[in-house]
Order: sequence, then structure tokens, then C-alpha cells
Amino acid sequence: MLRFFTAGESHGKGLIAFLEGIPAGLKIDFEFIKKEMKRRRSGYGRGKRSLSIEKDEIEIISGIRWGRTIGSPISIFIPNKDYENWKEILSPYEEYKNEELYLTKPRPGHADLAGALKFLREDLRDILERSSARETAARVAAGAICKLFLKEFNIEILSFTKEIGGIRAKAFKLPLEEIILKTESSPLRCLDPEAERKMKIAIDEAKKNGDTLGGIFTVCAYNVPPGLGSNSQWDLKIDGRIAQAMMSIPGVKGVEIGRGFDGARKKGSQVHDPIYWSKEKGFYRITNNAGGIEGGITNGEVIIVRCAMKPIPSLMKPLQSVDIKTKKSCSAMIVRSDVCVVPSAGVIGESMLAYVVADEFIKKFGGDSMKEIKVNYENYLKAIKAF
Amino acid sequence: MLRFFTAGESHGKGLIAFLEGIPAGLKIDFEFIKKEMKRRRSGYGRGKRSLSIEKDEIEIISGIRWGRTIGSPISIFIPNKDYENWKEILSPYEEYKNEELYLTKPRPGHADLAGALKFLREDLRDILERSSARETAARVAAGAICKLFLKEFNIEILSFTKEIGGIRAKAFKLPLEEIILKTESSPLRCLDPEAERKMKIAIDEAKKNGDTLGGIFTVCAYNVPPGLGSNSQWDLKIDGRIAQAMMSIPGVKGVEIGRGFDGARKKGSQVHDPIYWSKEKGFYRITNNAGGIEGGITNGEVIIVRCAMKPIPSLMKPLQSVDIKTKKSCSAMIVRSDVCVVPSAGVIGESMLAYVVADEFIKKFGGDSMKEIKVNYENYLKAIKAF
Amino acid sequence: MLRFFTAGESHGKGLIAFLEGIPAGLKIDFEFIKKEMKRRRSGYGRGKRSLSIEKDEIEIISGIRWGRTIGSPISIFIPNKDYENWKEILSPYEEYKNEELYLTKPRPGHADLAGALKFLREDLRDILERSSARETAARVAAGAICKLFLKEFNIEILSFTKEIGGIRAKAFKLPLEEIILKTESSPLRCLDPEAERKMKIAIDEAKKNGDTLGGIFTVCAYNVPPGLGSNSQWDLKIDGRIAQAMMSIPGVKGVEIGRGFDGARKKGSQVHDPIYWSKEKGFYRITNNAGGIEGGITNGEVIIVRCAMKPIPSLMKPLQSVDIKTKKSCSAMIVRSDVCVVPSAGVIGESMLAYVVADEFIKKFGGDSMKEIKVNYENYLKAIKAF
Amino acid sequence: MLRFFTAGESHGKGLIAFLEGIPAGLKIDFEFIKKEMKRRRSGYGRGKRSLSIEKDEIEIISGIRWGRTIGSPISIFIPNKDYENWKEILSPYEEYKNEELYLTKPRPGHADLAGALKFLREDLRDILERSSARETAARVAAGAICKLFLKEFNIEILSFTKEIGGIRAKAFKLPLEEIILKTESSPLRCLDPEAERKMKIAIDEAKKNGDTLGGIFTVCAYNVPPGLGSNSQWDLKIDGRIAQAMMSIPGVKGVEIGRGFDGARKKGSQVHDPIYWSKEKGFYRITNNAGGIEGGITNGEVIIVRCAMKPIPSLMKPLQSVDIKTKKSCSAMIVRSDVCVVPSAGVIGESMLAYVVADEFIKKFGGDSMKEIKVNYENYLKAIKAF
Repeated sequence: MLRFFTAGESHGKGLIAFLEGIPAGLKIDFEFIKKEMKRRRSGYGRGKRSLSIEKDEIEIISGIRWGRTIGSPISIFIPNKDYENWKEILSPYEEYKNEELYLTKPRPGHADLAGALKFLREDLRDILERSSARETAARVAAGAICKLFLKEFNIEILSFTKEIGGIRAKAFKLPLEEIILKTESSPLRCLDPEAERKMKIAIDEAKKNGDTLGGIFTVCAYNVPPGLGSNSQWDLKIDGRIAQAMMSIPGVKGVEIGRGFDGARKKGSQVHDPIYWSKEKGFYRITNNAGGIEGGITNGEVIIVRCAMKPIPSLMKPLQSVDIKTKKSCSAMIVRSDVCVVPSAGVIGESMLAYVVADEFIKKFGGDSMKEIKVNYENYLKAIKAF
Repeated sequence: MLRFFTAGESHGKGLIAFLEGIPAGLKIDFEFIKKEMKRRRSGYGRGKRSLSIEKDEIEIISGIRWGRTIGSPISIFIPNKDYENWKEILSPYEEYKNEELYLTKPRPGHADLAGALKFLREDLRDILERSSARETAARVAAGAICKLFLKEFNIEILSFTKEIGGIRAKAFKLPLEEIILKTESSPLRCLDPEAERKMKIAIDEAKKNGDTLGGIFTVCAYNVPPGLGSNSQWDLKIDGRIAQAMMSIPGVKGVEIGRGFDGARKKGSQVHDPIYWSKEKGFYRITNNAGGIEGGITNGEVIIVRCAMKPIPSLMKPLQSVDIKTKKSCSAMIVRSDVCVVPSAGVIGESMLAYVVADEFIKKFGGDSMKEIKVNYENYLKAIKAF
Repeated sequence: MLRFFTAGESHGKGLIAFLEGIPAGLKIDFEFIKKEMKRRRSGYGRGKRSLSIEKDEIEIISGIRWGRTIGSPISIFIPNKDYENWKEILSPYEEYKNEELYLTKPRPGHADLAGALKFLREDLRDILERSSARETAARVAAGAICKLFLKEFNIEILSFTKEIGGIRAKAFKLPLEEIILKTESSPLRCLDPEAERKMKIAIDEAKKNGDTLGGIFTVCAYNVPPGLGSNSQWDLKIDGRIAQAMMSIPGVKGVEIGRGFDGARKKGSQVHDPIYWSKEKGFYRITNNAGGIEGGITNGEVIIVRCAMKPIPSLMKPLQSVDIKTKKSCSAMIVRSDVCVVPSAGVIGESMLAYVVADEFIKKFGGDSMKEIKVNYENYLKAIKAF
Repeated sequence: MLRFFTAGESHGKGLIAFLEGIPAGLKIDFEFIKKEMKRRRSGYGRGKRSLSIEKDEIEIISGIRWGRTIGSPISIFIPNKDYENWKEILSPYEEYKNEELYLTKPRPGHADLAGALKFLREDLRDILERSSARETAARVAAGAICKLFLKEFNIEILSFTKEIGGIRAKAFKLPLEEIILKTESSPLRCLDPEAERKMKIAIDEAKKNGDTLGGIFTVCAYNVPPGLGSNSQWDLKIDGRIAQAMMSIPGVKGVEIGRGFDGARKKGSQVHDPIYWSKEKGFYRITNNAGGIEGGITNGEVIIVRCAMKPIPSLMKPLQSVDIKTKKSCSAMIVRSDVCVVPSAGVIGESMLAYVVADEFIKKFGGDSMKEIKVNYENYLKAIKAF
């Protein structure tokens, strides 16, 4: 069982990622974690803070020693480089309390108002500091470790931008390596250069208008064995768990697996993936409309998840709102933000998928050390080969 | 905390629904539960079993006494009326084992093959008996109790068919009562009679061709207070929990909340819901693109969830498969089934949404008796009114 | 992960045991389950109901087919043979409600009063029906399956009576088989015949006086591998989990592991178990003051747990109480009950220990089928042998 | 739901306490937390490190702003002041790896060997850094916040030393305030000065002999309302949850509630607590043999828990062990440690009891803000008063 939580406010001292249950003996590639952190911050359409202020240096607090996990909970601290400027506003101490600084004009689309009502807070900052997407930096740090774990079993997770502002990238059938190569060198993490060009224009225009854009990203997991998840209980189905993990990403309002919504328009004879078998490959498919999951269980094909992200609700031309103190009509507060974060959201999506797949992997193959789980995994592969 | 599980095989003795955590003193309307069970079985496009063999009589085993919950776990038994004909095939005893009856030709799109590999079973029946949609009868029984609980707080949950076989129903702005009235009297639970006519034709045609159809259904929760769920941790967000619950419904491959995928194509200025306030209503919105959830928290507007259901993978004209014993190419086995179950899936979706909302409601308002939770709820409503 | 719950009232239709997560392919010995059910009911000092009315026939509802588990949740129904006489008093339907039958005189020592306040119930029957020790029949049914699972790995669980009414049995150093042989043929499940003779006299005397007796029982698990549980988080420690499971048995007020309270009086040099190693045995100990657990992890020695059970709070000469309706002083209600159930409690303790050990075993060794988990287990044994 | 975890190694950068679910608006008394941290470190018989090196300054990372909780997860960092001297030995980076520093001589009674086998680690430091009792500093930090929460409802938690090295303190019937006053000014947190004098001599002697001592401590919770926990499922019983929490404290091998083991020797007529009622007090008891819990539910009396702590397994005159590398007989490694930590363990026990009671309190009374939960609590008190 892999337990994963985060803590931390957007402008506070920093973020904590807590990850418990990674087997002992996993080699940690720190450069890889750094690269992942950087991938989250990148992308055309990001604001200044994303690109410069936050360097997202990570500090390992526990669980890793001499380059390897040791079985104890991993905790990571991601200091907020800008904290010096916020230490009074985010101070834990009452002496800094200043009612004049209260934020009272909630942004539609954000947790601001719903959170203030839930927790009965008069200062919206108490809500928005936690619901800020900055929290996802901690997800990516933990996700990077899940990815390193999965890589030991040859499982690779990637993402790309499918759509921004209604501009849809063409679909390509590319090998894993090429997808990674192309997305990593694309400013919008998009495989279709022509669409990307248009997306950039749309982003520029939105920026000019004080507006924001959303879009769709795809996350895939390659080389996942059949048998993760379960059909036996509603809350054990891996598609359900993936849907929860993805929908929990700030701004995501839709999740589909395989053909998803489009598949709902097909006939049964068109949309299910015929089964084949060969001595070398075992059971396999030629199509993958199911997105790698049948009956809540992975079937050995690539897991394909697509997520719809709404445009960021922090607008420079703010929407109609109500001051929670005076109850008077007002414009929502303006909080500096990005114009479009779909490419970053893809990276966060990778982290969440990596977490769920790693968790299910550890549940199925057990083991408290890499040595143990590797043998278990090999044995399962042999068993299903001989099935 | 509301714990909800099911047990039972499709042709076994029966199903068990286990529901723990409903406060004591909830009045149980047995006619309502029966009606819910019936709603799940209905719908144009259902096969013979759905309509006749299964009557889905429910037997309260525990947790309800003299018409009310008493605080102990509720368990419900839904006997399989047809068990007499299956008692050897599903017998718990080894003496009935018969290798000649093994099912070995997995259906693409079902858990059959992935499950057989996972659990290393040679008889696909060991998998399909559990992954059959019959299991959802137990969900509806438990969901009916969740709905009765929510009704005490005026929270109503409904569903309707949005699309079948690519035929899309028009959108209507109707009051709650009228939606219920219209869907309950429609054979496809569809608000648009013209679309419904075409859907029926499509179903007839699919049936003739031994094919199946999927579609899209919408589930809504009315009168949910603001403040359920939380922005504070990824796994506490109510949208994530709803996504999991919905994606766990057999056949569902996509979930969206509010504008969902379509909203990802809009600009920020178009898609967020401006905030208003009046003395009578408190904070309110005129639009509801967010589908009642912002930042993982309910905002007081109607919760709107849309789910994409793939066509049933049990085809009368079966797909290409491989015999798991001989490894030879074959047609998938034929299992008697329905042609289209989108309207039923809507009812199951209601149950799952009712479970999640009831669970979050109980978490927020606490209380071990209806008396206690009602007072707590009233006090919260007063507090946010005075906010 | 092994999920285990029960449902059911003492005089209701019956009890449900729900057990999810046992790997597929476990052979089920139904005679063994029956024998376990009978062991729970036996013992000198049990009342008439225990011995005659309840036959505790079990009905497998799901999860077992043709003599083996199939991976789906196991549910077991234990009908209440006497339900015919209670069907109105325990009816789910309001029409049988009868305020004249309300029980209003809570028994000190029982959940009666605390439960009535918690759930705000006016009829104590709503509480006592669930808190009755009859519920433990479902625990034993599920526990029997956990034991069958553990037996496949040579892990054996047994219990014996250490003390009744202050009469303490002598300690014996006996091999596993002999302990089982002796306890199973002893009416009080006690290894010391002389003590047993005195215990029986004490029970007879208590009975004559309308009084009840408690005592102490020991539960042991043999052949548990080192490495179950974890030192890494407070809630993962297996000693903590065992303590919870044991303390949850009705009437248990104390739990100790290994030397327990007595060990707290020793010096460090006296109480820790020196470590030895030989090629054949690997690491081993000569003493076992730790009771098989160090730092929250099993160390390969026998797990030894001792539980203190208070005397049954249902007295024939009832204690001082207060009528919850009139608030007048009264004698507590009289509910037919046993005089002493310590031997039975040992059997229930075996079930709870079997559940915890099986759960930790499955967590560590993974696997969805017996075939898979067995190979994993063998590999771990090899790895620690070669350590 | 209150989630509580810790992370961190004994000589690493520091410890993390993670606590999620405390309602927003709780006023944080930082002096109180500091005092609690200090109480854990104190006590006659503690080693040098406890008293001087570790100052246990706490750093709030998240969840508290301007003196109050804000609803987001609370995380606390407790830096290790001595880290400078350990930064290579505990470094996350592989370049500092040094096989010559491997610890290979496991201490009997510690997690050393069992952990090394579980996680397949060749350096025992990888185990002992986490299983060290230093981890409990994070428990006390989180526990202090739970205590502050409970104080808002007048619930007080205290502890005292009952026994050290077999020397038993006399029992006293004292009011809450006096117990606190006396224990806080006693070097062994003991109410009986005569026993304390003897305990100190025993500690001195043990120290002289390179030996260690264990003992028994009592933890109590005052003013807990009736109705926390539940009789309805084995894992919801508050006595079970308390037993787990207590047994998870390093060194604890036994837990008893109320009369515990001693009560198992009494007759039913002697050990249950008769029920009384008066208009002012409602239902009450004169005796409290049940230790405040009946049927897994609090009954409104003081919760009394007693824990047996084995002597510390880090001996200056080390025990017989085996080198895990050479497999040769050896003396266990010597790790600087304390002679007796029973008084500190009591403080940790307070933290764990505070956590469980706060968690159950929040589950029962719900609410996301102090304002909300206070009103709910008041209403429940009214309801049971009027019961």
C-alpha cells in the first residue's frame, strides 16, 4: 500500500510531499526528480512566477539514504524561495494578523467561496493558499519517485497536449521514444506542430485580453502488466482509482479512458478490441479502444487517459463577484497567474497515474524490498506466459 | 463515514449489499427501495432476464428494525430467483466441479481475460460471474437507502439519458419535478421524445444485427449545500470521489462534471460562473458550468455529472477471440445479454452519486442519529446564511 | 489487503460475514469451518442457547465455487435458527413496532446505556442486539477461512485458557500438537487439569449465585515468518493491529504480547531474547519474551498474545441501574446468558489473530492466486535464508 | 477524520508530523506545544541526548496561520540540531555510502534484525534510524495540537507513572488538578513520593550495571462525552483503537483499560459499574472499573488506560547477538540510550490517546470549523441531557 499526501500553502514556507510504502532499495536518480520538477513549471503560457521565482529545489527529509530508499516513509520539502516576502502574511503567529489584508472578493471557478463557507473563514487567503495549483509541485516530486519505481519494471509514463482553446492536435501513431522526444522539445508538449502554432497564437490572444485557456491532455502508461486493479469490488477497479486521481488535479473537469465519450457513440462490434495470441507475445490486441483496462483490470495494453482541463479561473479581466464582507457586487480579486497550463497539467497527470499504477503494482506483487518485488514480478510474468 | 460494499455472483444464491454508517432513526420506505430496484431493470433494450426472471426482491438482513435504521450495519440480501437452475454450476462444493463446463472463450471488452490472468483461473465463469452487471442490483439497493437519507435534507438525485448510439437528446431547462415526471414515463429515460424515437430505432437495428449500443447519461443532485468535499487534499476532493464512483460502474469509460470536455474549449471569461448574492438566497449563480463543484467542494448549485458508457461487450455476433485452453482462434462465447442499458446505468449512477454525497454529508455534519445530524445541518445552514 | 466486516443482530434473521481479498484458488474445507463454529459454542459454563438452539449452520453466499475461492468477496450467512420466534420483535417493518416491548433497564458493563445515548434510541434492544457476543459467530466463520489460508503456509493458530475467576493454570512447555490435543479435549480449553477442576467448581458456584466469571486466555501463532508488520509507521505495527483486533472482542479489557505486564517488571538484561544463528535454522532465539514481535515486526518466533476478559455483564442477580424512560432506580434487565465464556473467547481470539496475520501476509507477499502467493513466499524464505 | 502520520529518521535532517482534519479556527498556543515537547524529553533516567542536544524546536510548515488552524493539513518540522555531525552518515546521496560504517550487530528486543530481514538491508542503521524512539517527538507535536483541540471542549488528558522496575506506586484518589500538579513537579511523573524514591534508586543501580528498566504508566482522559466509538463493528470500537495507538508506542507490550487484567479475576457482581441518575449530572457512576468504555463506546466516565513498557533494549552491557554479515556470535552493538523512559512514554501515551479521542470526536460531531463543531457538540449535550 502506497500512501501519498501533500501539505503546504502556496506562499508558505514550502510544500511537503509524503510517500510511504515504496520498497526498500530503490535507486533514486535526483537529476530525474529535478527534471520532472522543471517539466511541471515549463510550457508556453506560464506566468513569471512559474518560470523564474520558483526553482523548486527539493530537500529530502527522510526515507532515502545513500542513494536508495530504505523502507521508511519518504518525505520531501520543497521550500518556497519567495517566502521571505510572505513571511508575515503567511506567519503561523497571531501577532502578524492584519484584517486589512483580508481577501474578500472570491474568484468564480476557484475554491475561494465554497471553501470560505465550508471552513467559515473571513479571509479568502486561508482557502486559496491551499487550493492553489502550487500544491501540485509536491505531487510531481512524489510522482517522480513513483516513476523511478515503475521504470525498474520497464513501465513508462508520458503525456502530451491534445487540445488547447478548442484547437485539436492530429492523432499520430508513434513509438514511445518518439512521442517522448517530440513532446519534450515542444513548448506546448504537443505532437502536432501545426496545431501547436495555432495554440500559441490563441494563448497570446487570450493573454492580451486578460483571459485564459483550457484544453485536453493525454496520459499514457506503457508496459503495464495485465492484472492490476480488480473487478471484484467497486472501489478496487483501477479505472475508478485513475479517474479519482485525475479529477483531483486542479482544473480537471473530465476524465476518459481509451475511446471514452467517443466510444459511447460506436456499436459494440466496432469498439471492443479483438483478442489474439502468439507464442512470443502471449495474448495481445491490435486495437486499444479500451485504453488498457477491461472490467476494472489492466489488460496488458497501454493505459490511455484523457483529461479535460477548464481554463484557469484567475483572470486579469476579472469576473463578476460579491465581496464576502460587504455583500456588495464587485469584480473578483486579481491574482497573478498563468494563461494556460495544460502542458503542465499533463505532467501532473503523469504523476497521478504513476502513483496509482505504482500503488496497484505494489499491492499485487507485494514485497518490502526491490529485490523481493522483482522476483515476484518475474514469477507472475512467467505464470501468465505459461497460462 | 459510510462504508459500502457488495458481494455475490451473477447466478449464485444472491447478492449482498453492505452499508454501514447511516445514522440511527432513518425511516425506511420499502416501497421506494422496490421502485428503485425496478427502475434499474427497466428500459427499452433490456433482455428477457432483466425484465422477467429477476424480480429483485430484497430481504433486509440487518440494520433496520420496526421501520427505521438502528445504527448497526445494514445488510441486504437480494436472492437470485433463478438459482435453482444454477445451483450446481455455482455450487460452493467441489463435488459439482465439472471441467467440461469451463468457459474458455473470453469476450473482448469484458473482464474475462484480464481477470483470468490476474487470478490465474482456467474457467472464465469464475471471473464473469462477479464482473457481470447484475452486481449493480446491490448498488441500487444500498443507493436507495442513501437516497432516503438525503431526502430527509431535501436533496434529490435524478438521471436522464443524454445520448444513445450517437443520437443526442436536446438540452432542456426544466424544473426538477418535470424532469422526474418525464424521465420516469419515458422508456429510455430521455427528455427529448424525438431523439428517443430515433434511439429506439437504433436499438432495434442493433438487436437485429446481434450488436449493442452505448451512450451518455447525466446524473444530478439537487439542493446539496455548499461545503461538501474538500480542497485540502487530493483524495478528499468530492469531484475525484464522484469520478471514481461513476467510473466504477460497469461499462463507464468517461466522466465529466459540469461543462466537462466542452468547457475545456471555452475561454475563462466564458466558462466560470459569476457570483451573486441576495438576502433571501445568500450566494448564488445564474449559470452552472462548474456543475456544482469548485476546487473539490460543492458550491451549492446542482451537481451535474455526465458519464460515457461503452456498448455492452456481450455480443450475439461475437468478436474474434482466443480459446484460453487451446490458444486457438475462436469466436468469443455468447452470453445472453441486453442490447443497450444506458437508462439503467443512469439509475446506477444515481445510486453511486447518492452514496458519495451521503458519505460526505455524514462526514461534514457528523451525528449518530437523524435527530443529531438534522440539528447540526440546520446550524450550518444558519451559519452560512449569517456568513 | 483483506477487508473483514460483519453484520447482523443477535436475534435477527442471521449474521453476515464479509471477507474480501483472499487469493483465488484456496481450497475450502467445510468440515473445518463447521468445527470452528462448534468450538466457539462449546465450553463448560455456556448457557442453553449456546449449546442447543444455535447450530450455526453456515451458508456460503459468494466467493467460493466448486470447493475453492475464486477471487471475489466471500460472504457467509449464518441463519438464526430461532428467528421464527423473534420475527416480530426484530422485524424490519414498522407495523410490528410495539412500545410495550421496549427494554429500558440498561445492564452496567454492557453497551446498553452508552449506545442508547450515542444513537439516541429509546429501546435498548436496538443497541444490545448488535453488541451481543452472538456477532462473534461471524468472526469465527471468516476467521476459519483465514486459518485455512494460513495453513497453506504451515501457519497454525491455537488458544488456551490461562485463568478463570482468578484460578491460574500452570505454564507448560509443550509442542504445538500436544497443546492442540489437550485443549481440544478439555471442557475449559485448559492445559492444567488440576486448575481446570477448580475453575469448574468456581463456575458452578458463580452460576448458583447468579454471578459470572472472567479470565485470561492465550492465543498463539506458530510458524509465522519474520517480516510481517512494519516499524515504519505507528499504524503499520503488527502488535498495534493485533491489540486492536483483540481488544475488539466483547469483554476483553486487556491485551499483552509476550511477557507483557510481567516483562515491565524485569531488567533489560533479563527480558530481551538473545539472537542465535545456525545454518539450518537461520536466526533463532531460545527464549521468546518478545512474543514473536520486535519493533512492530514479526521476528520468526511464535506470536504470543494474552487477553484479559471481564466477567459477562449479563447477571441473573442484576446490578443497580436506572430506567432510561422513568429515570427511576431499578435492577438491570435480565438477559439469559452464559456464566463464563473465556474458552470461547479464546477461539474468537484465534479468529482475530488469524485475520490480522493473514492480512499482513497478503500485504507482504501480494498475489491474487494461491499459486502466485506461494511462489512469492518461497522466494522470500530463500532470500532470508541467504541473507 | 483525522489523519496522522510521521516521517523522519533519528539522526536525519529532522522529523515531520502530518496531521490532517483539525477543524479551522482552532487557536494554537505555541508555548503549550513547546512545553509538551519538553515534557517528553524530561524524566529521571534519560540520557544526555534527551536532555541537552535535542531542543526539539518545532517549525510550523503548514496549516496554521495567524495563530489559528485554517483547515489545510498541518505539517510540522522538528529539525535535528545535531544533523551537522550526521549529514554524511544520513545523506540521501550515494557518494557518501561507506560500507565500513555498516552496523551489523542487531540488538535483541529492537526492530534491528526483524527489520533487516523484512526490508533485506545489510546496514542495520537503515532500520534503527526509523524505529528509534526519537520518532515519538513528532507524535507529541501532533498530539499537542490534538490536546489543544480537546481542551476547547474541556477534555483533559494526563498521565502518571504507575510502576518502574517492579516498584509500584500506591493508588490515590485525587482531583484532576492535583494529579497534574503533582506529576508535573515529580521527576518520574509519579504520585507516590515514597515509591518514586525507590524507583530512582533502582534506576541508578540499573545505570551502574549497564542495564535498563521498564514499567507501567497510566493515561487518562477527563470529561469525554458518552458516545464516542461504536459497538457496531469490530474496527470502530474505541477501546480497540486506543489499544492499537498505545501498543504502537515503542516498547509497549501490554495495554489494559479500566480494571484490565485485574478485573478478569473478579466476579461480575464486583466489577461492573452500577448506573445512577440525577437531574444535575444525568447518568453517572460511582465506580469506574470499566475505565470509561462499555461495549466499545465511551460512557462519560474518565477513560483510564494502563500500558506496560518493557525495559529499553539498548543496553550498555550488551546481549548475545549474531553479526548479520559474518554470522558469527557477537555482542549486540552499543547505542547510546536512556536507562528508563517510562515517564516520557506516559507523555507519548497522552499524545496517542489525544489523537484517538480527537479523531472520534470529530467523526461524531463533524464540522469543518471550530464554530461549527462547538455548536454541534452543545446540541448533543443538550440531547443527551433531555434523553
